[in-house]
Amino acid sequence: MASIAMENEIVRVEPPNWWVGFKNTDFQLMVKATNIAKSVPEISKKGISIKKTTEGSSPNYLFIDLNISDKVGPCFFIIEFKFKDGDLKTHRYELKERVKPGEEYIGFNSSDVIYLITPDRFANSEAIKNTVSHLIDNSIDRNNDYARHGGDIKGITKHLDYIDDMGFTTIWPTPVLLNDMEQESYHGYAITDFYQVDPRFGTLSDYKELVDKAKERNIKVIMDQVVHHCGLNHWWMLDLPFRDWINYQENFEKQKPIILTNHRRTCNQDPYASEKDKKEMTEGWFVYAMPDLNQRNPFMAKYLIQNSIWWIETLGLGGIRQDTYSYSDKNFMAQWAGAIMTEFPNFSIVGEEWSYNPLLIAYWQNGDQNRDGYKSNLKSTMDFSMQNIIIEALKEEEHWGTGLIKIYEGLANDFAYASPKDLMAFLDNHDMDRVFTLLNKNIVDTQMALGYLLLLPRIPQLYYGTEILMHNSEKPGDHGLIRSDFPGGWNRDPVNAFTGKNLTQAQKDMQSFLKQLLNYRKNSKAIHEGKTIHFAPFNGVYVLFRSFEDEIVAIIINKNKNPYTLNLTSFSEIGLTGKIMKNIISHTTLIWKDSIRLSSKGATILTTKL
Amino acid sequence: MASIAMENEIVRVEPPNWWVGFKNTDFQLMVKATNIAKSVPEISKKGISIKKTTEGSSPNYLFIDLNISDKVGPCFFIIEFKFKDGDLKTHRYELKERVKPGEEYIGFNSSDVIYLITPDRFANSEAIKNTVSHLIDNSIDRNNDYARHGGDIKGITKHLDYIDDMGFTTIWPTPVLLNDMEQESYHGYAITDFYQVDPRFGTLSDYKELVDKAKERNIKVIMDQVVHHCGLNHWWMLDLPFRDWINYQENFEKQKPIILTNHRRTCNQDPYASEKDKKEMTEGWFVYAMPDLNQRNPFMAKYLIQNSIWWIETLGLGGIRQDTYSYSDKNFMAQWAGAIMTEFPNFSIVGEEWSYNPLLIAYWQNGDQNRDGYKSNLKSTMDFSMQNIIIEALKEEEHWGTGLIKIYEGLANDFAYASPKDLMAFLDNHDMDRVFTLLNKNIVDTQMALGYLLLLPRIPQLYYGTEILMHNSEKPGDHGLIRSDFPGGWNRDPVNAFTGKNLTQAQKDMQSFLKQLLNYRKNSKAIHEGKTIHFAPFNGVYVLFRSFEDEIVAIIINKNKNPYTLNLTSFSEIGLTGKIMKNIISHTTLIWKDSIRLSSKGATILTTKL
Repeated sequence: MASIAMENEIVRVEPPNWWVGFKNTDFQLMVKATNIAKSVPEISKKGISIKKTTEGSSPNYLFIDLNISDKVGPCFFIIEFKFKDGDLKTHRYELKERVKPGEEYIGFNSSDVIYLITPDRFANSEAIKNTVSHLIDNSIDRNNDYARHGGDIKGITKHLDYIDDMGFTTIWPTPVLLNDMEQESYHGYAITDFYQVDPRFGTLSDYKELVDKAKERNIKVIMDQVVHHCGLNHWWMLDLPFRDWINYQENFEKQKPIILTNHRRTCNQDPYASEKDKKEMTEGWFVYAMPDLNQRNPFMAKYLIQNSIWWIETLGLGGIRQDTYSYSDKNFMAQWAGAIMTEFPNFSIVGEEWSYNPLLIAYWQNGDQNRDGYKSNLKSTMDFSMQNIIIEALKEEEHWGTGLIKIYEGLANDFAYASPKDLMAFLDNHDMDRVFTLLNKNIVDTQMALGYLLLLPRIPQLYYGTEILMHNSEKPGDHGLIRSDFPGGWNRDPVNAFTGKNLTQAQKDMQSFLKQLLNYRKNSKAIHEGKTIHFAPFNGVYVLFRSFEDEIVAIIINKNKNPYTLNLTSFSEIGLTGKIMKNIISHTTLIWKDSIRLSSKGATILTTKL
Repeated sequence: MASIAMENEIVRVEPPNWWVGFKNTDFQLMVKATNIAKSVPEISKKGISIKKTTEGSSPNYLFIDLNISDKVGPCFFIIEFKFKDGDLKTHRYELKERVKPGEEYIGFNSSDVIYLITPDRFANSEAIKNTVSHLIDNSIDRNNDYARHGGDIKGITKHLDYIDDMGFTTIWPTPVLLNDMEQESYHGYAITDFYQVDPRFGTLSDYKELVDKAKERNIKVIMDQVVHHCGLNHWWMLDLPFRDWINYQENFEKQKPIILTNHRRTCNQDPYASEKDKKEMTEGWFVYAMPDLNQRNPFMAKYLIQNSIWWIETLGLGGIRQDTYSYSDKNFMAQWAGAIMTEFPNFSIVGEEWSYNPLLIAYWQNGDQNRDGYKSNLKSTMDFSMQNIIIEALKEEEHWGTGLIKIYEGLANDFAYASPKDLMAFLDNHDMDRVFTLLNKNIVDTQMALGYLLLLPRIPQLYYGTEILMHNSEKPGDHGLIRSDFPGGWNRDPVNAFTGKNLTQAQKDMQSFLKQLLNYRKNSKAIHEGKTIHFAPFNGVYVLFRSFEDEIVAIIINKNKNPYTLNLTSFSEIGLTGKIMKNIISHTTLIWKDSIRLSSKGATILTTKL
């Protein structure tokens, strides 16, 4: 009986459970309880052995390294913590059975199109209370761009049919774990508990339900994770396990000025970077409200790796998006990604490196032959270079070095990537002006950009609302406005993009354009894995082909405002002459012969698949 | 006796001589004479064997593959060409002794600074007639930017003392081979005989004298070669050896329109480039006046390779600059560079790839691990990216992503180069606006740019006249004006930059600035091969250090117009605290302590070597 009473005194054991059947049969528990470091833990369960215990610098933490022999099946077992004074605390721990082998966790890939969602701004299910009294920020104010608006996980689940109908095959909601912060808690990037879903977004089972319901529709779910920093109100900030648990910890504990990152991300590659800059880059905090986690502390490293694996296994994820990738210790990131890919060899992780420099994008991708020997284990990096180039190419006048030539020469850089088709490409995201704003609210330009993006040998990602021309042109750069509410996500919204109610004709047209194209792409081997051939832009027209066996898809990007006759004999090597081609958007057909008349500026997307 | 009379009928045998002692003991002669293809060549000299003969498509060419056994010393030998009708032509051919082993041809490297000269515009020696009546363009007009001005090879030789005193250690004159062209023959890039010095520039012995006299001063000479194209009036254009001697030869011969290159240089790397674009890129002519040589014809390939080797050996060169590198067949270029580097393993070749994309610059350098398996054999490529970045960084206002940060992040790209110190860096050249024009005639900016350039881990190249602030600001982009006459190069010039006569104070100051810096650099191991460390720009100040053993050189680039106190403790890892440092330009000294006061915008260049 004593033991049961005592058990309440164990504040935390993390990960809260583990599984049998991983390749790595070791795992490590972080145990938090008053003076727990003074105890000796014991486990009597056969096949489960304590390999090592480590006290934290704080007496209230004990780290236990365990091994599970292959004889052990799913079970509960008791850990007894024995104190010299005779005291005893116990904890009942669960080893679960895995639902499926690690190989069956198939990550997002070039056959997918990702729909990026800011959960607070997408849809309010009305199923849960979006204000929670024990959390600091418990108000809802839809008139304030930086306040919570009340969207939630069930709001996404509720609209999976819409997402599916549109033709998206993967969703990436920005983080939904607890952010018990004073300000801007809606965005989710200041996590205060890595094992808890923010109750204002829902519960763990809501999250699991989202993944399961998505899976029923063959939609993968990407979890947006943050191993670089936590929120300042993270529970451990009041009692840090080690003296080096976070970077610049001494400054934090002694209330000295915090050093912020210098954002000099090239320090990760630069052979000439000073030690000073490297330290400031990696150890400086992102902002004052986000302590920088010290992943060179091996217990922190293990904590974060196990946390990621825990979420993949608990939810059955289809991928991870890792925030601020290049700000973390790069050796840790390789270790983290490597540990995940060892357990889930067909999984996908995409890391955020906000750089327009293809050299840096290439550096982070697994398979790059880096001169410094760095092996990243990261399958996908974000193609900010392509984003930048597409926008510039469409906005600029056509001249020798400007306009479409930028896309043509930019795509040529693919020669330097270990795996171009595993790069994530996009026109905008939650941190950037919306593409419709970037393209000065020009619908034709936006369609050209989207058409090109969706035909590239890439994993395309679109931001929610792109399909209905959402923009932030009133305030470029304003993050709150970029993440505006999706109309129809709230009861009584006058406009409803899910049903089409009160959408403008232009919005409906764009929605239809994307729906056609996304649904074509869904089954297009030519786009998923086909050969790519493109032709140097000429007279304001740029043509790219994708082909796989009999399926050939072409996009003709025409910047001429006046009618233009495109000579098709230039493309004879593609072998289309005499073939019937269908316009993927309008469903009209034509025969590919000597020339084609382009009546006005725009993208023409054709396929041989009728 | 008959044979001697007959010998006159052999129009050309090229190369005109060869050497014993090469690693490759094979060589190939191109013999041109009426119906020579109908003859059978014989050589009775022991140890010299004919391995193969090949007729051209034209009966007037015969190609003879020879082998020299290692028993053969320098000698003359007779080639007898026997015709079926009993006719006999003979040719006396020389095999020379090599002056020194191939290993002793030391190419330009990071211990050098290159002075790029347009010979027609540098100095007129008055030693030769600069008009030659049998050449088409035999006028001199110094008032016409696109006409010949009369500079010559001896003009350069005459001023080697000036070049040496300034501190340059290598000269790169643009081509001086025969350009018997109607227009703009002054620039030298439309070669009409690959074995003849243009008599308007001088003779072969003048050229040899230049190299020898330069060598006495430890100055290397780079030859500017062109294997990509010839001039339209090249002698072989009247009777082409093969049907595929030049690209688009049928168009040329049948007077059909010539296809010009599309300049899509990314086709060399682009995995998605169309066959059409690749063909147009590589086979299209650069301009109508310059036929595109077909280096996939193995006889053309051999001809060009042997021509390059002939010039290295004949002159004792210190390097080759190869024009329009990326426009040629890239497999040929690798073969060409490889053949040269096999014979002269310590030689240097720099290839022109006019691209601001570091990926392309890296691709062409030997040692790059290209995914397509391409191995270039090219030691040095031109760092157009750095040129672009330095100019932008100095012109732009300091903001988050503009100004000095561009240099800092640009130099970080060195992580991707096989050998950064073997890249040639520059601020301008004969095809670009002069740096003083690019920097809006701002002297301080120009000094900052030059100071930085000369401290980089690179091979710096300066264009003649930079030292006296030559510019083309009246007509940006005007090639003729970019290549203006160097004052003092012609008798009776009112201004003489060699003597200083009538130079403005600003010109004298810049000349002195460069002279100090170049002469310091000449003996600076820290700059030639030292370690590089730089610090992220902060408050408009950017600092870069080079160090080798006890020698530490620092450049502080300060863009603040008002006095600024730079905190030196940020640089403590360099280990300068308490050291006396000398200003390389002003020769004043200071002690490196807590801070340094920078009184105004400019570059401060300091060294520990007193």
